[in-house]
Amino acid sequence: MEQANKDRSLVSKVMDGLVTGIVEEKYGAILPPQDVLSKEFDVSRTVMREALSMLLARDMLDVRPKIGTRIRPMSDWRMIDEDVVNWRFRAKPDPMFLRDVIEFRILIEPRAAAQAAARGSAADVAAIREAFEAFRVIHPGEPGYQDADELFHTRIVIASGNQFFRQMAAIIRGALSSVNPIVHDKEGLWETAIASHQRVIEAIERRDPQEAESASLAMIEHAAEELGDKFSTQPQARV
Amino acid sequence: MEQANKDRSLVSKVMDGLVTGIVEEKYGAILPPQDVLSKEFDVSRTVMREALSMLLARDMLDVRPKIGTRIRPMSDWRMIDEDVVNWRFRAKPDPMFLRDVIEFRILIEPRAAAQAAARGSAADVAAIREAFEAFRVIHPGEPGYQDADELFHTRIVIASGNQFFRQMAAIIRGALSSVNPIVHDKEGLWETAIASHQRVIEAIERRDPQEAESASLAMIEHAAEELGDKFSTQPQARV
Repeated sequence: MEQANKDRSLVSKVMDGLVTGIVEEKYGAILPPQDVLSKEFDVSRTVMREALSMLLARDMLDVRPKIGTRIRPMSDWRMIDEDVVNWRFRAKPDPMFLRDVIEFRILIEPRAAAQAAARGSAADVAAIREAFEAFRVIHPGEPGYQDADELFHTRIVIASGNQFFRQMAAIIRGALSSVNPIVHDKEGLWETAIASHQRVIEAIERRDPQEAESASLAMIEHAAEELGDKFSTQPQARV
Repeated sequence: MEQANKDRSLVSKVMDGLVTGIVEEKYGAILPPQDVLSKEFDVSRTVMREALSMLLARDMLDVRPKIGTRIRPMSDWRMIDEDVVNWRFRAKPDPMFLRDVIEFRILIEPRAAAQAAARGSAADVAAIREAFEAFRVIHPGEPGYQDADELFHTRIVIASGNQFFRQMAAIIRGALSSVNPIVHDKEGLWETAIASHQRVIEAIERRDPQEAESASLAMIEHAAEELGDKFSTQPQARV
């Protein structure tokens, strides 16, 4: 017990030291080997391995065979604790939670779609189109439907180019996984879903940020209506 | 090493089991004592303590003397990994990072201010006013200035009432801590900062969501201008 606590605080200290070295660009692109780091920090290999695994789990490092432990770009560092997101969305959704989820999606996704139209790379836009083409051929309830939908929404957020928007993809995926089973139970909704997604990708391809934003908003509001929520999703009128 | 890895995966399994019990409302408001839980999960007290400490660190539980380990409301569960946020903001900001930070603040804060005006409780609004009164009497560079500013922005996000917006407060605090030292170096900016913050709290007190949103946007854009960034912070014209 005592020993476990001591190890834990030592691991935290080593993590902090590693991160300080990383942000000060002390190591360059590749971290020194584990045994070198253990000596540098004067800790056991077990403690060093533990500290490195905590940074790996946060997408701050990755291990490349024959190359070593690469420091990932800081924009990849994962600010969202995906365990907590998944746990949170595992609970039965209450109306207040659904309201908050939809408000959050309305906050992020239309702006991300506008940014994707304004400055997404050709490859980013092609990736969204690819996800849409996969999505449109799978019926709700069939295997892969949920994944295809999540991929479409995720790729829009990635195409926004903003690293904070990108971080929010985990929450959007959680939202889709919790809301989709409720929404897609109803008949005839699939065609509407396809049409609303199509409007978004076409606006992004036409590089029309304003239309992309409106289309994304319409897509989410459509899902919200299907949820039967009568709450006002926005605090004030918008253009 | 072997043992450490085995313990870790056991801790993960126990965490998952605890969370499952919590979301299925198996335990009620207070968790059973540690030794009871150790027996239920058939693990050592050390492993159980470790699993509980991981949930505590994520604001999922709190320990009340004489009462026991209380399960916190799910809306408090921390989706943001504050370690990573702090590490990320510790690095020297590059122009792209600053652009992303400001875009993110423009995304969250004006909408949160509008929501605060529309539905913040009287106590929420009074707490923002209190933070503003503390902020207005401290000069930049004096101790407490940074904290007072962070408190003002945090309380607006809290008053929005949306649990996802609330989660974003950690990122906004990170942004302020990294941007404020750059901005507040300049002469005469303090008066402008006070005035722009005042406009926000007054709109919230008047329960005017549209004015609160505009005032918040102006406050952030003012800070952005001071950063000397010439990039366009929005993808398209807004009202």
